[in-house]
Amino acid sequence: MDVRNPSDRFRALRARISGLGEPPGADRGEPGQPLTVGEWALLIDDIVDHAEDNTDPLWNVDPGTSRPYDAIFVGGGASGRFGAAYLRARGGRALIIDRWPFLGGSCPHQACVPHHLFSECARELDLARQLSGKLWFGEFDSSRARITEVVELFKRGRSLPHAVMNWQSKEQLDLEFVLNTPATVLDEHTVEAAGRRFQGENLVLCTGARTVVPDIPGIDLPGVFDFASLVERLDYEPTRCVIIGGSKVALEYGSFFQATGCQTTILTRSPLMSTAGLHHVDDGLRDYVVAMMVDRGIEVVEGAEPVEVLGDSRVTGVRYRTADGRTVDVDSDFVFVGTGERPDLKMYDALGLEVDERGFVVADATMRTSVPSVYAVGDLIGPPMEMFKARKCGMTAARNIMGEHYEYDFTEYPDFLHTTYEVSWCGLSEAEAKARYPKVIKLQMPPDDADPESFPLPAAEGSMLYAFTRPLLSGWFKLLIDADSRRIVGAHHVGFGAKDAFQYIDHLIRRPEGWTIDDMAELSELFLNPEHFIQLSRLRAGKLELVDL
Amino acid sequence: MDVRNPSDRFRALRARISGLGEPPGADRGEPGQPLTVGEWALLIDDIVDHAEDNTDPLWNVDPGTSRPYDAIFVGGGASGRFGAAYLRARGGRALIIDRWPFLGGSCPHQACVPHHLFSECARELDLARQLSGKLWFGEFDSSRARITEVVELFKRGRSLPHAVMNWQSKEQLDLEFVLNTPATVLDEHTVEAAGRRFQGENLVLCTGARTVVPDIPGIDLPGVFDFASLVERLDYEPTRCVIIGGSKVALEYGSFFQATGCQTTILTRSPLMSTAGLHHVDDGLRDYVVAMMVDRGIEVVEGAEPVEVLGDSRVTGVRYRTADGRTVDVDSDFVFVGTGERPDLKMYDALGLEVDERGFVVADATMRTSVPSVYAVGDLIGPPMEMFKARKCGMTAARNIMGEHYEYDFTEYPDFLHTTYEVSWCGLSEAEAKARYPKVIKLQMPPDDADPESFPLPAAEGSMLYAFTRPLLSGWFKLLIDADSRRIVGAHHVGFGAKDAFQYIDHLIRRPEGWTIDDMAELSELFLNPEHFIQLSRLRAGKLELVDL
Repeated sequence: MDVRNPSDRFRALRARISGLGEPPGADRGEPGQPLTVGEWALLIDDIVDHAEDNTDPLWNVDPGTSRPYDAIFVGGGASGRFGAAYLRARGGRALIIDRWPFLGGSCPHQACVPHHLFSECARELDLARQLSGKLWFGEFDSSRARITEVVELFKRGRSLPHAVMNWQSKEQLDLEFVLNTPATVLDEHTVEAAGRRFQGENLVLCTGARTVVPDIPGIDLPGVFDFASLVERLDYEPTRCVIIGGSKVALEYGSFFQATGCQTTILTRSPLMSTAGLHHVDDGLRDYVVAMMVDRGIEVVEGAEPVEVLGDSRVTGVRYRTADGRTVDVDSDFVFVGTGERPDLKMYDALGLEVDERGFVVADATMRTSVPSVYAVGDLIGPPMEMFKARKCGMTAARNIMGEHYEYDFTEYPDFLHTTYEVSWCGLSEAEAKARYPKVIKLQMPPDDADPESFPLPAAEGSMLYAFTRPLLSGWFKLLIDADSRRIVGAHHVGFGAKDAFQYIDHLIRRPEGWTIDDMAELSELFLNPEHFIQLSRLRAGKLELVDL
Repeated sequence: MDVRNPSDRFRALRARISGLGEPPGADRGEPGQPLTVGEWALLIDDIVDHAEDNTDPLWNVDPGTSRPYDAIFVGGGASGRFGAAYLRARGGRALIIDRWPFLGGSCPHQACVPHHLFSECARELDLARQLSGKLWFGEFDSSRARITEVVELFKRGRSLPHAVMNWQSKEQLDLEFVLNTPATVLDEHTVEAAGRRFQGENLVLCTGARTVVPDIPGIDLPGVFDFASLVERLDYEPTRCVIIGGSKVALEYGSFFQATGCQTTILTRSPLMSTAGLHHVDDGLRDYVVAMMVDRGIEVVEGAEPVEVLGDSRVTGVRYRTADGRTVDVDSDFVFVGTGERPDLKMYDALGLEVDERGFVVADATMRTSVPSVYAVGDLIGPPMEMFKARKCGMTAARNIMGEHYEYDFTEYPDFLHTTYEVSWCGLSEAEAKARYPKVIKLQMPPDDADPESFPLPAAEGSMLYAFTRPLLSGWFKLLIDADSRRIVGAHHVGFGAKDAFQYIDHLIRRPEGWTIDDMAELSELFLNPEHFIQLSRLRAGKLELVDL
């Protein structure tokens, strides 16, 4: 092969996946060593960059067995890949079909992975602005902070995470898949892909959701983007952004845009962080998060109803109606839609699935739909549209398909979002806790009555430079305790480096036996740790009658 | 008062702490509102910056009671402050005496807090170097990255963390203290401070440790520093550093010096991270940590025996002997001693304490020493010289003094250190696990046989920019599982943002009933989380016979 020729390279690399399972007569080379991660990345790059030339499916299907598939996973994103992996680990046979040439779905291609890269850039850009001209930071040059360049960085690099997932799925998880081809669902056991029909004992539907675009004039103008089209189509550097919607995506992408220097306005009907998608948001946490967004210059307009995207050939602004009925125009060369997501269910018409009033597939706690042998998982069945839920739904379907009765309740979970901070929380908000328990105490920094400009809360990883230059910026946290049972009932943090811990704190506080301030005080804290819950608990745990700290 | 005059201000603010408890006839103003955090900071600044003029003690002693002290805490650092707080919370009466004008000890003044600021700077400097000229990062200007300037930043700001601790101790924890004056221990019940004798039912000794300076020629030359003198006395910008010793401090400060552009050589007898102070260090973790230090340009010389600090009027280099007996000179204008710490016990001569062969006070699991009614806590009783141990020792002494029998075993704990990364671990290393269990499997990224230059392990908070520019830099992690019991027995991580979680993982895996890969797979992970243990566990937990991932 000529490695400089994408088509030659495509054919040669494709042949080495396994080459097995494709229709007779396919034009293919000799199988060889399994592709390395680097080779997978080349193959995916060739397809993504030269889609028109590289339309052949990637086959990794075992022809050496006539064993039926226990399940066909339609879509290989978070829910499909984890579900298939779990089913395979249990000894079942699974097939994944995905239209993209990689497993992992939109997450590593357009959604969570770029979001995390953008959020890390937002955090670093914020630091570069706050410390402009100080220490080793040069004067911040806003002209060098370009959304387009960060998007390009992501696009140049995204094939490597894709490659890791393909490599892992094939070499470590022993999964069968057909990629780079759409699936057609024919009935509750049959899926067609690339001209071949596959039969499965069960189907697991894993095709996710897409942005709900508000139905207002001008919404189709060039210059209107969502998280997916931002990555694929942004071809100019925006200078003035209006975000329609107040979802997590709105806060996260808005913080990034603003940090680059693109003046950003968020138009949201409900107060930020109060929408149905987010629960247990503590008022103190919300106040700090929004105040810090405003401190960075973001304009937040709550109670705003978008009326029209303005412009002739491309976006020039957005018109919205205020809560008190006035109409306001905002200039803008860039509109970003962050109003939430819904699934597209057209491809499942043949199944006649029951769908709820919001447009989500109805599934029970085992992920079974109204159609026997068809499971639906992840974003298809409604919020929270989070990675852990998608993956655990996939696992749940797999366990039930493999004969175990297993139910998954995703109503409670730790949550987080990014601004230029990491914002993490689990359990109850203070208001919720006070409604439920007669005496709630809190361990909080800074205290409500402190002057935040001179209160560098015990800072830690990632907030030290803020603490030593402008204490107000160094974060906020609160731990809520039911004083009678001494149980911890809620935990809330804005800063850096605590998100990971919330996965475990959430588990501990939801154990049937609870997790008390005394239990917390027994742990061994790693100084300086970002959430400070352990040491603050110890400062109070000696008291028989608990009080605030 | 004239607020611009430090002495006037000192007197006025000092009077407002409480003014109570000082000897009759003391020159003092009227008590007023409690000091705010900002006012505490001014007061501490005045004392630290004008020590000669502001030698009066800070009295916060309740004169309205003749109740005896249950304990006098000699030293108000981590162990003393937490011990006193716990004892007070239990209803006891405690007095803290400290030579410094603030509580918290060396940690916020010279040790852990500056270390964390320096380590955050090291991380940001590393990013600024790695991305020099890319994105919004300007060309890295090494001449602007100055150790002295970061030290100054710390010194300008350190009074605020001090102030928070004084404010919290007085207003929230209701502690009594005498600060800014040395304590003289007269017998096992009596301590003198500022001309007044205090009697306690018990004494708790909390005076910590100081750097062990190696006994070699030239060690007293100007240009030789440890972590404390670095903060107090560095008055030139070093260009070439030699670190004597291979302790945590050596790795942490060395990484910072190197990141500023000060070429750093670490001379260590034992291999890095293999010394007695660190246990359970996994070889893979060590290899990655050291490789990444070397990648940044640090010279690591293992098996080196320092012979002499060279120079006439100030340091010009260090002579050392190699493992094979050669003598080598390294030029240097800056020598940093990171060989570990020992307590100074002279002030306790009157007590006749039993001391072990290494020079640490002997104390049992209740923190009782060989002398009735005297407890010793924290660094005084030996390694680990860590914050959690100091604090929990203080709490342990307090509980026993208040009549509860409570033992504290600090032999197992989660651990961490900084390079330009956060390095966290708990449980067993792979070698230890394999020695203990017949079948150990691991979930590791990157896998041992992967090409790390093309394997951006599932990156997360803080490692995204590395993953998209140079995957090798994006971190390393490993989870170890006893395949028979399915219990997790060790966890290891290099990257960012996972340290906090290790506090909870350490607890979970050391529960009597254990913590299995199946338990881990049930948690709700927050995508992208830095340690990825939950989702990787789920990918494997379906298997009845566990295998590596």
